Amino acid sequence: MPENVNRQFILKTRPDGMPRESDFEFVQSAIPEPEHGQVLVKNLWMSIDPYMRGRLRDGPSYAPPVAIGGVLQGEAVCRVVESRLDGFSAGDIVRGHIGWQEYGVLDVTGAHAVDTSLGPISTAVGVLGMPGLTAYFGLLEVNRPQPGDTIVVSAASGAVGAIVGQIGKIMGCRVVGIAGSDEKVAYIVDELGFDAGINYNTQDVASAIEAACPDGVDCYFDNVGGEITEAVMPYFNDFARMAICGRISEYNEDTPSMGPRVMRYVHYKQAVVEGFLVFRWADRYEEGRARLADWVRDGKIKYREDIVEGFENAAKAFIGQLGGANFGKLLIKVSDE
Amino acid sequence: MPENVNRQFILKTRPDGMPRESDFEFVQSAIPEPEHGQVLVKNLWMSIDPYMRGRLRDGPSYAPPVAIGGVLQGEAVCRVVESRLDGFSAGDIVRGHIGWQEYGVLDVTGAHAVDTSLGPISTAVGVLGMPGLTAYFGLLEVNRPQPGDTIVVSAASGAVGAIVGQIGKIMGCRVVGIAGSDEKVAYIVDELGFDAGINYNTQDVASAIEAACPDGVDCYFDNVGGEITEAVMPYFNDFARMAICGRISEYNEDTPSMGPRVMRYVHYKQAVVEGFLVFRWADRYEEGRARLADWVRDGKIKYREDIVEGFENAAKAFIGQLGGANFGKLLIKVSDE
Repeated sequence: MPENVNRQFILKTRPDGMPRESDFEFVQSAIPEPEHGQVLVKNLWMSIDPYMRGRLRDGPSYAPPVAIGGVLQGEAVCRVVESRLDGFSAGDIVRGHIGWQEYGVLDVTGAHAVDTSLGPISTAVGVLGMPGLTAYFGLLEVNRPQPGDTIVVSAASGAVGAIVGQIGKIMGCRVVGIAGSDEKVAYIVDELGFDAGINYNTQDVASAIEAACPDGVDCYFDNVGGEITEAVMPYFNDFARMAICGRISEYNEDTPSMGPRVMRYVHYKQAVVEGFLVFRWADRYEEGRARLADWVRDGKIKYREDIVEGFENAAKAFIGQLGGANFGKLLIKVSDE
Repeated sequence: MPENVNRQFILKTRPDGMPRESDFEFVQSAIPEPEHGQVLVKNLWMSIDPYMRGRLRDGPSYAPPVAIGGVLQGEAVCRVVESRLDGFSAGDIVRGHIGWQEYGVLDVTGAHAVDTSLGPISTAVGVLGMPGLTAYFGLLEVNRPQPGDTIVVSAASGAVGAIVGQIGKIMGCRVVGIAGSDEKVAYIVDELGFDAGINYNTQDVASAIEAACPDGVDCYFDNVGGEITEAVMPYFNDFARMAICGRISEYNEDTPSMGPRVMRYVHYKQAVVEGFLVFRWADRYEEGRARLADWVRDGKIKYREDIVEGFENAAKAFIGQLGGANFGKLLIKVSDE
């Protein structure tokens, strides 16, 4: 057993706008004792995701907020240190929502065995985990692309967007990505095979969409919301499908910001705008994971990890992510495997 | 044959904002001669619809705009004066898009025989015509209400909204209507059987929706857009369906107005927002018309006509409609039947 210290990030104050490091407190507590039916796990790879911003707000959402003084929520790939749960043994690699801490306990509903044959274990919270499954189900079930369709994806070099675009290519579509730097645009086009990329920080998104989508937009997979989305919607084709996966541009707003009313494009084009949460397809995760793993193995899907070393850097990394600083799936390397 | 004078409304200037009567010109021309394959018809009942505002704008839409100097577009119930088209005889009652004029010609694609056994002929452009079919297909195919659902409909006493609400009651739903006067609210509740009504001119729509929809909103049939829609969306239930039928509050805007960004409600609630045009179901109009006629005959659907006498009053009536002045399906009685 290690020395009995569990480092944690807890919520000190609810952020007003962009979170600051001072909204979080880095504390130490005792390592919990697993009860009967639980495993004690050590955090190895912690996932940092934009949706976590929503959990810091005390208001209506699809999940309850983190309490003041509570451990921040998040998923991690962990190693079992001690098991009092049938089917799990010390040394097993599991995935679970232990939150922002070095050690945690999981029960039978929260501990998910990681199939280490599918790829490096960090992918269990990346391309073979929630971000990959979000891309898979959101694109295929909500956007429903047909061969030849033009797909636009925002936050295109991110953990979800990069997979969306590559699945779009596998499906025989034209894929246009929007990202925040020339380096990210070069990556999605040169490395991932997107047909075109747009740098929203240096280009006028509307005219760039017009140029990159000469046949209009059939599918829009939206991770960002706000102005970028408003620039894309006028290029919808009839019966376009827009999947709302995320709205990172709006996550720091306590009240909705103002923008042009865009329902005219939905109306005239008979478009469909649908929000989704990946949990909707929980009973099909294994299907999605198996298919993603096949594509990764066949080289049809590549993934990029943005690894931050050291658990103590999690808050800073999260704040950077909300501003678009990460490049690829953001992971905290908490401990050696 | 009548005296050879055909009175028409033509577009003089493209309206900037709310149209003024001076944007239209009331002119006289010769009655057209039907060619082989055409019927000459006399306008009896002319339909005035909010969508016509879109045809006055020279910009992207689902239909080409009226040209400057061109006759305004619209549908009317007409009597055949002279037929050079097989299957039609003088005296027949037909429906067709002859535009804002007392006489017009229609060919085989434009002349639609009216089944006078179904109801008064004016209903061919009302409850048994485009407005009724819009309500029927939009509610049943886009909102897809289930028994017990709560349906909210805006412009609820209008030609479309009143039918939507009554079909909702037939389907076993709770129906809440939003309208612009206490008289209209009393009508939809007391005469049409809506469960509740909200007067958007005197009530705070958001708190009134909250009170009238204790189980949230499952279906929103939207005819108005803008602020009223923004007040309804926060009350969406999971997997709510919003059908965009019209956006009358925005029709006088040449560029989109600003409002709060509302995609958060679509996202978290996994809602679906879908725009539609009734033409999508053109191959099923007869099904819809037959069912509507049955419901009218059985007293399950009531309709109300707001009849303006005299063709020369069409422009004024149209402008009034855009401001919510009409009460029921707006018709111009152009000529005695």
